[in-house]
Amino acid sequence: MTTIIDAQVYDLRFPTSLSLDGSDAMNKDGDYSAAYVVLVTDDPQLSGYGFTFTIGRGNDLCVAAARQRALPLIGRDVANMVGDLGGVYRDLAGDTQLRWLGPEKGVVHLAMAAVMNAVWDLAARLAGKPVWRLLSDMSPEELVDVADLRYLSDALTRDEAIEILREMEPTRQERIDELDRRGGYPCYTTSAGWLGYSDDKLRRLLKEAVDSGYQHVKLKVGANLEDDRRRMGIAREVIGWDAKLMIDANQVWDVPEAIDWVNELAHFNPLWIEEPTSPDDVLGHAAVRRAVAPIGVATGEHGMNRVLFKQMFQAGAIDYCQLDAARLASINEILAVYLMAKKFGVPVCPHAGGVGLCELVQHLSIFDYVAVSGTLENRVTEYVDHLHEHFVDPCIVVEGNYVLPSQPGYSAKVFRETLDVYSYPKGSYWAAASESESVGAVSIL
Amino acid sequence: MTTIIDAQVYDLRFPTSLSLDGSDAMNKDGDYSAAYVVLVTDDPQLSGYGFTFTIGRGNDLCVAAARQRALPLIGRDVANMVGDLGGVYRDLAGDTQLRWLGPEKGVVHLAMAAVMNAVWDLAARLAGKPVWRLLSDMSPEELVDVADLRYLSDALTRDEAIEILREMEPTRQERIDELDRRGGYPCYTTSAGWLGYSDDKLRRLLKEAVDSGYQHVKLKVGANLEDDRRRMGIAREVIGWDAKLMIDANQVWDVPEAIDWVNELAHFNPLWIEEPTSPDDVLGHAAVRRAVAPIGVATGEHGMNRVLFKQMFQAGAIDYCQLDAARLASINEILAVYLMAKKFGVPVCPHAGGVGLCELVQHLSIFDYVAVSGTLENRVTEYVDHLHEHFVDPCIVVEGNYVLPSQPGYSAKVFRETLDVYSYPKGSYWAAASESESVGAVSIL
Repeated sequence: MTTIIDAQVYDLRFPTSLSLDGSDAMNKDGDYSAAYVVLVTDDPQLSGYGFTFTIGRGNDLCVAAARQRALPLIGRDVANMVGDLGGVYRDLAGDTQLRWLGPEKGVVHLAMAAVMNAVWDLAARLAGKPVWRLLSDMSPEELVDVADLRYLSDALTRDEAIEILREMEPTRQERIDELDRRGGYPCYTTSAGWLGYSDDKLRRLLKEAVDSGYQHVKLKVGANLEDDRRRMGIAREVIGWDAKLMIDANQVWDVPEAIDWVNELAHFNPLWIEEPTSPDDVLGHAAVRRAVAPIGVATGEHGMNRVLFKQMFQAGAIDYCQLDAARLASINEILAVYLMAKKFGVPVCPHAGGVGLCELVQHLSIFDYVAVSGTLENRVTEYVDHLHEHFVDPCIVVEGNYVLPSQPGYSAKVFRETLDVYSYPKGSYWAAASESESVGAVSIL
Repeated sequence: MTTIIDAQVYDLRFPTSLSLDGSDAMNKDGDYSAAYVVLVTDDPQLSGYGFTFTIGRGNDLCVAAARQRALPLIGRDVANMVGDLGGVYRDLAGDTQLRWLGPEKGVVHLAMAAVMNAVWDLAARLAGKPVWRLLSDMSPEELVDVADLRYLSDALTRDEAIEILREMEPTRQERIDELDRRGGYPCYTTSAGWLGYSDDKLRRLLKEAVDSGYQHVKLKVGANLEDDRRRMGIAREVIGWDAKLMIDANQVWDVPEAIDWVNELAHFNPLWIEEPTSPDDVLGHAAVRRAVAPIGVATGEHGMNRVLFKQMFQAGAIDYCQLDAARLASINEILAVYLMAKKFGVPVCPHAGGVGLCELVQHLSIFDYVAVSGTLENRVTEYVDHLHEHFVDPCIVVEGNYVLPSQPGYSAKVFRETLDVYSYPKGSYWAAASESESVGAVSIL
């Protein structure tokens, strides 16, 4: 019998604001960060690793919340726990007092993601499989038992969910073989298009992306219309008109402004406009979608929970669902979103980038193709070439495809040295940086 | 010149779970709590007091977040700050890194409420007015300048907001006089109907409520249909059929279940069903509303931000808007919700209870009548008789009315002794309680 004996939570922060990597119209100066959870067992060979992603200040709040979320796991038998991944999730999610702080949104939900991602990593390590295969080996009933279907029955019943999975079950292996044959799951790159980059850097990175085999690239827009026109013009010059160009406004507009602005950029033929307005605004996205068609509407990286996505589908608000592996409460909640997306016919193109999100979403996209959607049509998963060097089992992208992960787990483990250098505020990087900084005064009571 | 020199934040928790005060189908064991902010100035006579409300575990997260939110206020000139309450709000809300943790929801938004409530309290103290009068003395333009209208322009433009306020401006004093004459702003009581109470206690408390002049009472429902029938039967026996009976399910149902359950209780003629399902589910509330009419649908205590309320109004999802003074980001955001409610013709009946919420919402309801809605029709504000003894300037309810507050501020200040006894975990109450408790193990790294 193997038991969880500790839950270690680290406040990892990377100083990405210094290079404007990740800069956009809303998030100007992010320091990519992770509240990183290690579920330690009494077997020295077995731990579970997971995290949620933030962009700096407040990562400590997620760390503190993850400690509280993980507390009930300490002392639990690992085999028993991974045999009931739905029950574990419901136990943690059901905390009657923490629930008030959401419910199911914000810091306490991000912390649920961090802890449950570590639980799924642990389950996959125990099984000796990568997460995508662990999921692909589960029966429709097993998958639906772990999925969080609460509040969804007006859109998707348990029976419908099982039916969706059964339809694809007999042909799962064919699609795994197909992914192996084609070199992996298709992705696009955002690495070229950050708002803080110069035109020359943009042009160079776009060229590199096309040369590397990408068929899709994405630009950040929304700060200045003339700049957007110029940058989209550069993009079309470099990538041509056959490759797909996506644009991302990161929530800077009200609904009427979004409609006007996007229509001003329509002649560059963008595939989608991402995050045109508040991520909470289901009806707003539906209005934008009607007004900018045939340009698609995409959102989801700030999609707080499955109830929001349910409404996005019910209202016909989006053309692309960009769920986030560290904002939704892990695979339990993500499964529900994939199943609804299938029923409503909306392709899921997960958000990635940040730190470690690419490592997670490759598993999700592969599983989706194998067991849920059964198609690659209109599917493309984000890839950003940042910070992968910190991961023990980093994602591998070759010619615009995520290669199928082969190591056990969720690819979430970072190197010990990364913890030593980038833990905030005492890791060696931050300790050195703080010597030149003054710190504000606030009472600790 | 008076300057803010410190932001003290206290983790106040009251052991209400011991008596099942506040128990309902979702929140079974809340320890009513507040992340309580004191903005200290260099004038010993002037501080600002505010808080957000939680139900126990995780209150520490709001405390930590409020410290971060308040940090930019330290060193600011008070007169300059209260002269630009819209600018202060935008400065704090615009933190480019904390935003990722919502945006505008969950812990970081609750912390915005705590800090900005203290700023509004400070502004009113400096002006020597209760908050309701401070607001009632502001011009339409001044009010709209402090209101957060971002993401709302498809539902309410700035010009429409000014127009709404101008229409009511000439007759504000008449309505203040009317409230004085009638004894205050009408309220209802939830004190009788907590789910954990016995039938005898329910009957006794309902009788006391009617004898005290209440025309509206509310029961918690949703755990067991037979229990709900029996308790509603008792309620109608005691209060008769002229008084209004409201029911509150605290989010326990999926949409189809909500419709079936409420229709089973329809013959008790409830005025509204409150929180029938997930608070995030705009389209779900709209579906419930269509299916249970003429029973009204009410929600809002978990309404995370103004964008959610915008959609509730646009979708015709609710009959009563129950905004929360400590969940929305203070008066800046609440003003926007009141203005939209007026445009869409939805009465606002604020959520209260908890700890200190009654103290806050009385100011809001009075201001709404005086300057926005101009009517008391279908308006009734929650009142729960809990924990008022901890407040220096507690709300006063006489014969079912909130008496107009007369002291300067937002009625949010608690006694020093309360801080000494109920601060968690070192206040004298909790220190004594912890001696018999074992504490779980989790690493602090």
